[in-house]
Formats: sequence, structure tokens, C-alpha cells
Amino acid sequence: MFESAELGHKVSKQEYEREVPKLREALLDAQFELSQRAGFQVILLIGGVDGAGKGETVNLLNDWMDPHHIHTVAFSDPDQQERERPYMWRFWRALPPKGKIGIFFGSWYTEPIVDRVMGHAKTADFDQRLQEIVRFEKMLTDEGALVLKFWFHLSREKQKTRLESLQKNPKTRWRVAETAWDRFKKYDKFKKISEHALRLTSTAEAPWIVVEGMDSNYRNLTVGKTLLAALEEKLKESRLTKPANGFPLLPTIDNRHILGSLDLGLHLAKHEYEKQLDYYQGKLSQLSRHPGFEKRSVIAVFEGPDAAGKGGGIKKITNALDARKYQVIPVAAPTDEELAHPYLWRFWRHMPGHGRFTLFDRSWYGRVLVERVEKFCSEADWMRGYNEINDFEQQLVENGAFLFKFWIAISKEEQLARFEERQKIGFKRFKITEEDWRNREKWNDYETAVCDMVDRTSTDSAPWTLVEGNDKYYARIRILKTLCEKIEKEIS
Amino acid sequence: MFESAELGHKVSKQEYEREVPKLREALLDAQFELSQRAGFQVILLIGGVDGAGKGETVNLLNDWMDPHHIHTVAFSDPDQQERERPYMWRFWRALPPKGKIGIFFGSWYTEPIVDRVMGHAKTADFDQRLQEIVRFEKMLTDEGALVLKFWFHLSREKQKTRLESLQKNPKTRWRVAETAWDRFKKYDKFKKISEHALRLTSTAEAPWIVVEGMDSNYRNLTVGKTLLAALEEKLKESRLTKPANGFPLLPTIDNRHILGSLDLGLHLAKHEYEKQLDYYQGKLSQLSRHPGFEKRSVIAVFEGPDAAGKGGGIKKITNALDARKYQVIPVAAPTDEELAHPYLWRFWRHMPGHGRFTLFDRSWYGRVLVERVEKFCSEADWMRGYNEINDFEQQLVENGAFLFKFWIAISKEEQLARFEERQKIGFKRFKITEEDWRNREKWNDYETAVCDMVDRTSTDSAPWTLVEGNDKYYARIRILKTLCEKIEKEIS
Repeated sequence: MFESAELGHKVSKQEYEREVPKLREALLDAQFELSQRAGFQVILLIGGVDGAGKGETVNLLNDWMDPHHIHTVAFSDPDQQERERPYMWRFWRALPPKGKIGIFFGSWYTEPIVDRVMGHAKTADFDQRLQEIVRFEKMLTDEGALVLKFWFHLSREKQKTRLESLQKNPKTRWRVAETAWDRFKKYDKFKKISEHALRLTSTAEAPWIVVEGMDSNYRNLTVGKTLLAALEEKLKESRLTKPANGFPLLPTIDNRHILGSLDLGLHLAKHEYEKQLDYYQGKLSQLSRHPGFEKRSVIAVFEGPDAAGKGGGIKKITNALDARKYQVIPVAAPTDEELAHPYLWRFWRHMPGHGRFTLFDRSWYGRVLVERVEKFCSEADWMRGYNEINDFEQQLVENGAFLFKFWIAISKEEQLARFEERQKIGFKRFKITEEDWRNREKWNDYETAVCDMVDRTSTDSAPWTLVEGNDKYYARIRILKTLCEKIEKEIS
Repeated sequence: MFESAELGHKVSKQEYEREVPKLREALLDAQFELSQRAGFQVILLIGGVDGAGKGETVNLLNDWMDPHHIHTVAFSDPDQQERERPYMWRFWRALPPKGKIGIFFGSWYTEPIVDRVMGHAKTADFDQRLQEIVRFEKMLTDEGALVLKFWFHLSREKQKTRLESLQKNPKTRWRVAETAWDRFKKYDKFKKISEHALRLTSTAEAPWIVVEGMDSNYRNLTVGKTLLAALEEKLKESRLTKPANGFPLLPTIDNRHILGSLDLGLHLAKHEYEKQLDYYQGKLSQLSRHPGFEKRSVIAVFEGPDAAGKGGGIKKITNALDARKYQVIPVAAPTDEELAHPYLWRFWRHMPGHGRFTLFDRSWYGRVLVERVEKFCSEADWMRGYNEINDFEQQLVENGAFLFKFWIAISKEEQLARFEERQKIGFKRFKITEEDWRNREKWNDYETAVCDMVDRTSTDSAPWTLVEGNDKYYARIRILKTLCEKIEKEIS
């Protein structure tokens, strides 16, 4: 794959100076249109060998274009915050919003490639990480992003020449790190493994563009012109609408479903409730301070119809915890900033560090519930949502989080009773809106969506807990007990 | 993922008898439209636990619909022919053509799942195979196929009940194999691993549909109605055209490319040629009979402009071989049958068994050469072609084939001289057609396509050999030498 990038590509000074003004103007135009319409973001990855001019090109792009709309991010070794969270967290945080260009100097490819070159990872594990990257990038392009991946290459001889000449010049000496020469010693291995990575991750939607890094004129013009062509193409295309190409899911033909199988008559007497509440809150409090929990975290998702008791369930958990240890995230309609990012971005933001709890009052499952039922997104979008959510949760669990997903079920009659009750009580009246009554009319559509959701996202590592919620006492204890038992089993 | 399929779904006899006539009629209508338009094929996978009624449902589908247009294939252990070729070969061979429905009873999922349950494969390897399946199925759906995947599930208790009752009845006893009870002992492991497989391979384009297998009315209606809904949706959608959504690849901006870097002046004197020809043909003949070659095979691809000497190069190889050991496949425009299958199908057909050579005069690279230049397929189609080809070749190499890819390069002037020469010589005149002259006009477009092809498909395990072809003697020896050296290095 690197044959063409060892030919000694060159562009003369004359030609370069003739081409650059036109290119800059066109890039600025395209960038302006991008920022005005804000229909998608551009994610530009720069990877490759040391000394191939990655930094120079990134600086030049910032110079050629309007740096207000460019986010340049350089990734070095992860810090404490980042080490406590899944590998992809830092990259999610750095994603540019729609309308902007993000230049990633070093990226999600760096660590897997380096780990493999250094022998810290086996081929099968390496391939697995590469496939995860393919899925991640597919999510980005499915969400509309333009993903451009440049790999700067130098032949062995040219890398040597280049590193030596950078080192001779006092102005550029700082750019040749110790590690650059260490890596040079493994040139062949690095090349072979990079080629493998590029091959497996070069997709039709986000192909790698290999650029010879020796001649700066050639390198800069190639990157600039490729970026321009891709940007113009995408701006043209994004004026058209996207076809919704989904697979039709049918509701179960006998109308028997997982929600209908719940015994909503389950209940707990008040004194029994109070006894158990004491017991499990005490237990949870202990567990949250257990040494075995220091490197773990809890992520709990609460979903259910309006007035199901999500808030109450959360409250009984937080009552047991030190306020510095938890965060409750109420999920409502996304903000402008959140809408300008891929769907899952707003949730990645809130991932807890070690020893902490994050409780979501509604969650990423909105994609396959409200967005599906209300047709806020296309069928194809929510269908791929199942996979994206499973991948996302897999990362959380692999990173050591306890992930709980509670669906609190209530009957339609119980909901009505609670609505009427709330309207009577002054301080609870704000909790009932027109929208709640409207949602009620779509009860059956929501039931279908919930059943599909459980079928497609309840997995061995991240199962759903369906909670019979007509009796609040019963439901709250069920939730606390589920938390305590799983955490206790694993850490003690 | 199996929660809903353990609820005890049932459809009454009454309802079943009311629904089936309507369903059959609609299925027959849809099947008729499918066969008339022949715009795509349907690939229906049936997997799941023993005793869940897989065979019954397959029989019923054949009964409900017109079996002339259904290919039902049951896969058991691979035979000798199949074992000598890559794992996917048997499945490629069984793919239905456009307009037909293929029902796969057992599929590419069976072996990976069983291997994992039996502990023959590690998780990472298992995941890798699953990812390969995802890529394969993506290729199928990208090529327009409708892929339906049904998983028949039974809870542990119900599987036991069902196996026992099948065994009691003399008419059904044969259906309970010894292995079914063996597998039942590993029920929990099987369930966990299947769930993992389903999760990783359930995509928006080809999701798994889990069906509870206990009640035959429920099972049959679910499969029938799902098939009908998906078929009708797809028939509707395939009346619209597909958007070509490609990433713009630019030619190198300094016009320096891998073909231009070749020294076409390289040549060999006649006596030297004859000496070396003798030597390498003798060597190749020996190697083809070497014990180390018995479990290997050679696949060689010859590409190059018209009159580059592809045929001559092939001839010098076959001269050295026993005629029972090789096959030359000239690749021209696809036949109707070939057009009715995914692009790579026509090449899978010809994969050699152990100890054999297959020589392709033009090849699967037509996708990214002639089809690209002549716009026979969309930009998105040839862009994904690079990945599909890399995946395909990876399978060949992993299966032990020596894969050679020769691009025989000649200059435009040399081609003209050869064309004129051929027109003078009577028996060679048929070799020059109007089309050859037309192709010549697109010389530059082809060069761009060749450079992209080499950049994107020359990999460590399947590199391109660019052969300087202006001098036929030189080119032929270069080819023979490349074959001999690689084979010799690996088998002796």
C-alpha cells in the first residue's frame, strides 16, 4: 500500500506558488459554507511516520483556513481522568460539532498500532480493536460526518535523511524526540503493522489517503486538494436528503410480549418496605466505600413511561450515597450543542470516573424509544442504534463499570391514577404536561418499541432489569436489591 | 436477547387457519414479482437450538411458496473438495441468483459457534470470525441482496420437553440425533455464546429475528409474515435507484505515479532468455510436484493493457505444468448467470483445490479497472471493491494459496506497434477489435485506476508485482522467476 508513497513525489516552487492562492480561496469558501449550513462536521486524522511533516501540514491548514472553525487536537499519553474511562472517551470528547473541522493529530489508531509494534497486543486482539474502529467510524459517517484519514509515509532511507536533517537544524531539533529514533529501529515492523491497520480500516466511506511526506510542497498540496474535493462533494451531497432504508420489524404476532408477562400485582407492605429499604441502603452505602469499588463505577439507566417512578427510584439510591460520589443526569430534549454531535456524544460526556455513580433519568435509549415512535429519526437510524448502543455499553463494561438498565413498568390504568393524583397536589402539578397526555395515546407504539429494545439490547454483559412498578415500594426495593447483589457478588 | 422468546408464544388453531391462506397468497404474489423482476435475491438463514422446528418451518416455506424458485441447502460437515478451499467457498457456491430465494439450513454461523462452544476457538478468534461474517453480509446487502436471519430459540425446559416428545414418537424419532442431547448438556454455554454472536452480527441491514420455537403455529406465522413484510418492502424500494455516494479519489498531483516509475527499457537477449526459460520452467515443474506443494495451491492473476503479453506470460507457465494440474480462466464480460450473483461469485467458482494452479487472464480487478473507467458501476461500488477484494484475497492466502498478482506494463507506443503488427499477421488479426482502439483512448484513466488499485490492494500477504513488459523476454522471465522464488522459499 505504500509503493506510490516511495516514488519521490515533488512539486516545484513555481507550481506550488501558482496553485496555493486558488486552493486557499476555494478552501475558505468551502469552510464558510460548512460553517453556515452546519449540516455536518469534518474529522481529519493525520497519522504516519515520524519526520513526515505531520505537524507542518496541520499548522499550514490552520494558516490557510479560518482557525476559528478548526479544532486542532494533539493526543499524547492519556491523563488520569482519561485512564479511568473507556479508551474512546477522550476521542468522543474531542469530536468537533457540526459546521467545524476537527484536526486530530494522533488518533484512535496510535495506541493499537504502537501496542502491536511493541508486542503488547496479539494479532487477534489488534484486529479486534481495528474492527471496533471500523464500527466507530461507520457510526460517524452514518451520522453524517466527513471522515478524512491521511497517512504520511516515508521510505526507510528517506525517514533517516529527514530525521537527521531535522536534528541538525537548531530550529527544528526539538521536533525529533528520543522516541522517534527508537521507533526508527523498528521501521520494518512498524510499516508492516501500519499497512495491516490501513488495509482493514480503509472503507469506502472513510478510506485512507497515503501521502509521501518528503517534499513539503507535494504533501501540502495533496492534503489541501483532497480536503477540498471531499468537502465540495459532501456539501453538494448533503443538500439532498438521505434515504431511510430500514428492515421492517414486526410486533409479535400473538400479541404476547415481555411487558405483558410481568405480574404488576407484586407489592410490598409498608413495614416490610421500610425494613428492607434500611437494609439495602445501608448495604449500598458500604459497598460504595468498599476497597473493591475503588477502581469500578456504576452507571444506571432508568427508563419507563411517564409517572412510572423513575425519579423516586433514583432518589432511594442517592439517599444512600455521599453527594460527592454521584451525579444524576436528567435527559430531556438535546441542546443545540448536543444536536451538533453524533447521537451518543451527550452521554459520553457524563461517564463516571473511578469510585463514582452516574444515574441517568432517561438515557441513550431515547434513540430507540421516543425518537423511533415520534419519527424524529429515520427507521435506518434507530435500527443501527441497537448496534451502536451495544458497542457503547460493551466499552463501558469492559472498562470496569457496573451497568444497570431498569425498565420500570406500570399499567395504563396506574398511570392514569398517578396523573390525576399529581394534578391534585400543588407541588406535583408541574410534573404533568400536555405532552404526557399525548404520549399516553401512543401507549401501544411505545410498548412495541420497548419490547424490541429489550430483545435487541439485553445482553449477557448488560442485561435489562424489568421492574414491576405498580407498587412503588416493591419497585424501589427491587432496584436497590439488584444493584447491591450484583456489586457485592463481583467485588467481595 | 432471548427474553421474548421464552414467554410461551402461541397462536390458536383457529387463528392460524384464518391467517395462513391470506399469507400464502401474498407470499406467492411477492415471490412471483421477485422472479419476474430478478432485481435481487433473498437469502434466508435458519439457525438455532435443536428441536426448535427449523426443519419443519423450512419444509413449510417450500410448501407455501413455489419451490421452483427456492433453493434449500442444508450444510453438514464439509467434504474433501470443501475442506481444500477457504471456509466461505461452499457458501459462495450455494448463493441463490437474483430472482430466487435461498434457504440456508445451517450457515456460516454454525462452525464458529460450535467451535467456540467446544472450546476449539478463543473469544478473540471467535470475534474475528464474526466480524468477517459482518463484512461478508455487508457485501451481500451492498450488492442488493435481502438477507433474513432467523434464530429459533427454546428455553432450557422447553428444549428438554421438545426433544423428549420428538423421541417418543416413532415418526419423529429420527430427527433427534445423538449430538442433540450432547449439545443440550451445554445448553447454558451454547445460549451465552449464541447471544454474543447474534449481538455482534445483528446489523441494521441484516438483523437477527429471534423466534420462539415451541408452538409451530406461532413459529410458522412469524417467519412467514416477517419474510413477507421484508420482501414487500424491498420490492418497493428496489424500484428506486441507489445513490452513488463515493469518496473522491484524486490522481497524484505531481503526475508522478507507480507506473511511470518503471524502467520499460529493461530487456533480455534471446540466448539469455532461452537459457533462463529452460531453467525456470524446469524449476517450476519440480516445485509443482514437490511434496510441500501437495496441500498448497497457486492462484495467479494477470492484468495489463491490451497486447501487454498476458497470454504469452500464462503460456510460459502452463508449458511447464502437467495439463491436469492447471486451469486457465479467461475473464471476459460476465454471463447472465454471473451477473445474477454478487460480483466476486464468478471467481470463487474457480478456486483451485490442493496441488493445483488457476491462472486468471484478467480477474476480479475488473471491478476497479474497466468497471470504474467505463462507469459500469457506481463510485461507491468500486470504492468498496477494494475492501471486498482484500477480504477475499485474505481468505485465499489464509487457506494456504500462493497468490500472485502481475500487472504487465507497456508503453502507449509499444501497444500501438503491437496492434499494427497484429493487424498484419493473419492468425493474430482476430486479437484486435474496435474496442481495443477505444480503450486506448482512455489510457490515462486506466493509468489512474491502476495506480489506485496498486495503492489499495498491494498488501504484505498479497503484493502486486509490476512487470516491465515492453520486452516480452524480460517480462516472461520476471514472471516465472517471481513464481519460483516465492514458492521455493515457502515449501523447501
